[in-house]
Amino acid sequence: MREVAVIGIGQTKVDEHWDLSLRELAGFAVLDAVKDAGLDQVDALYLGNMMSGSANHQQQLGAYIADWVGLRYAEAVKLESACSSGASAFRSALLAVASGAVDTAVAVGVEKMTDSPGAEITAELSTAADADWEVSQGISFVALNALIMKRYLYEYGWDKNDFANFSINAHANGVHNPNARFRKKISREQYEKAGMVSEPINLMDASPIGDGAAAAVLVPVEKLGSLPGYPIIKIIGSAAATDSIAVHGRKDPLWLTAAEISSKKAYQQAGVTPQDIDFFELHDAFSIMAALSLEASGFAERGQGPRLALENEIIPTGKIPIATRGGLKARGHPVGATGMYQLVEVVEQLRHTAHGTQIEGAKIGMAQNIGGSGSNIITHILKRIN
Amino acid sequence: MREVAVIGIGQTKVDEHWDLSLRELAGFAVLDAVKDAGLDQVDALYLGNMMSGSANHQQQLGAYIADWVGLRYAEAVKLESACSSGASAFRSALLAVASGAVDTAVAVGVEKMTDSPGAEITAELSTAADADWEVSQGISFVALNALIMKRYLYEYGWDKNDFANFSINAHANGVHNPNARFRKKISREQYEKAGMVSEPINLMDASPIGDGAAAAVLVPVEKLGSLPGYPIIKIIGSAAATDSIAVHGRKDPLWLTAAEISSKKAYQQAGVTPQDIDFFELHDAFSIMAALSLEASGFAERGQGPRLALENEIIPTGKIPIATRGGLKARGHPVGATGMYQLVEVVEQLRHTAHGTQIEGAKIGMAQNIGGSGSNIITHILKRIN
Repeated sequence: MREVAVIGIGQTKVDEHWDLSLRELAGFAVLDAVKDAGLDQVDALYLGNMMSGSANHQQQLGAYIADWVGLRYAEAVKLESACSSGASAFRSALLAVASGAVDTAVAVGVEKMTDSPGAEITAELSTAADADWEVSQGISFVALNALIMKRYLYEYGWDKNDFANFSINAHANGVHNPNARFRKKISREQYEKAGMVSEPINLMDASPIGDGAAAAVLVPVEKLGSLPGYPIIKIIGSAAATDSIAVHGRKDPLWLTAAEISSKKAYQQAGVTPQDIDFFELHDAFSIMAALSLEASGFAERGQGPRLALENEIIPTGKIPIATRGGLKARGHPVGATGMYQLVEVVEQLRHTAHGTQIEGAKIGMAQNIGGSGSNIITHILKRIN
Repeated sequence: MREVAVIGIGQTKVDEHWDLSLRELAGFAVLDAVKDAGLDQVDALYLGNMMSGSANHQQQLGAYIADWVGLRYAEAVKLESACSSGASAFRSALLAVASGAVDTAVAVGVEKMTDSPGAEITAELSTAADADWEVSQGISFVALNALIMKRYLYEYGWDKNDFANFSINAHANGVHNPNARFRKKISREQYEKAGMVSEPINLMDASPIGDGAAAAVLVPVEKLGSLPGYPIIKIIGSAAATDSIAVHGRKDPLWLTAAEISSKKAYQQAGVTPQDIDFFELHDAFSIMAALSLEASGFAERGQGPRLALENEIIPTGKIPIATRGGLKARGHPVGATGMYQLVEVVEQLRHTAHGTQIEGAKIGMAQNIGGSGSNIITHILKRIN
């Protein structure tokens, strides 16, 4: 298995892009990444997307985007695992390059959501839950997460407002990210007074949808030569795991088993422990998910995720900085693109170009992308090696 | 890159399965394949599907099916490239095993189409065409293929009825396949008098949709030991290529460039030429596509594909047998599953268990799966090595 590095990144600002087509949205991110890599083209394209078939009436996005960016005839395919589609595309590109079948690959995540009516998007998002055993009961995706959070508060005795710092940190960091959907700080008071979406999840616990695309170019380390003039960012851990889609089917609805499995595998491959991780781009689709990720990935004891937020250990100067470029909460959550935004942000940090929220001396970063309410979780660890 | 073999296959009959859920449809094929491989479970699941998000209101099919077949916690993901999603899943499983990241993988293609109203399925299928430049003009998927066929007849001087043997051969072979949707022969007269769907494509030129699933288990050859008691079927060639989605965007609408590229790459990897291929499971979604595949893959001169049919060289005892288990025309075309059916049928032939249509001494078989009207084409070559 060949070692693989990321040598180019590109991203479109998360926004309501009514003036950009699906082609342009993904295409600009890909073109930026390929240009950033100093290449003219790549051998293959792996695209993560969840809902283009229904929201945009377009399937076959691999060929669709490949052609538009000048990669006609190249291999191209779409990966889907609900909100973790982005990381699925990255992992697929990684394995293709690692296997030797492909020499240069671009992974891109894209989602165009804001052209569709809100009710339609709510219905589309619910296809990440179990159609037979959850959605048929009338539950929406946010309501599922609300049930998890409610039970969490009950079991571990936290107050809902103990989660405030997850959102406050995300918004404070997003201010410095030109590609973030929301670039304004929020106060504790704003958090506490935010309108309720699905009790106990309020507007400040929930990440916004959006249109966006992010991309990265992957090549074998062996082809880079020895110590080129730019930092080499190597992928030192990559693992994916699943769980029951229906939350009630899990052994423990308050524990992300798929996060535990995939992070442990990634740590083992990388030869690191959670203490070696300089920052963690986790999947804060809802603030409860940030807490659960921190616990299942070994950064907090069971039921103690919110303590890291309360004690300010999640800010850029804390013990385990998270959502350093705004996270899903402030950068935004264009579902199939999110996993790629996380990875692009990890590379920004490792290149030491995360202006305004740079983690000092960042060397090892981790990204974790969650599909459904925890049914597909993919963890990647990247390391700067020069 | 490790060499990879197929050691288990499973399939559900293509039919109107109103009594089977999407879970059962895919699950039974996976369980059969894993059992056929003599295994209790596998490490990862790669699922090909085109339209479950809209037709079945369920995304995240990787985790969805993995859980149901007892693979909860395993890696699982969905691949989509329109009608070539099945072969995309197979190729993804292949690269994962070849890379060393995964030891045992199951690839499964599934589509459940007949629960939805016909008009809805026509709309879903058109998402394989270009939404901006084709579908917005009001063209359906069959109409696109009709335009290609019409131009082909005009350019090369064939009569529409010269295509009859493609359908007659497919139906004659399907009689012997217990998993085929249609198991009855058709006569030349039936072909010639069939109702017109979109001129010049009549009902006998067009493959039927259906519900179905097919699966295969892949393992590294090095883990098989030397000459086990069962035939080893090795994957000796695998390649994918794309083209413009919109037919009018292609250099030549009568030439499947992506088939030419992917078949040439596969031949090169396998160290074979078209003359070495004992049989060819091609993508006869419409009879014109069978002709174009034969030409672009090197079995016929440009514009001469129909001659092989006219001269009976495509039947099981001919020079290049195609659709040996009924093809898309008689076995049926549950779109995201079709590529996996083709590969399962190649394995049946190489195991010498294709009862009724066995190609004598079959040693090397090829499968070619087409997404869209030629925008994504994936070619695999398999060989029996003991």
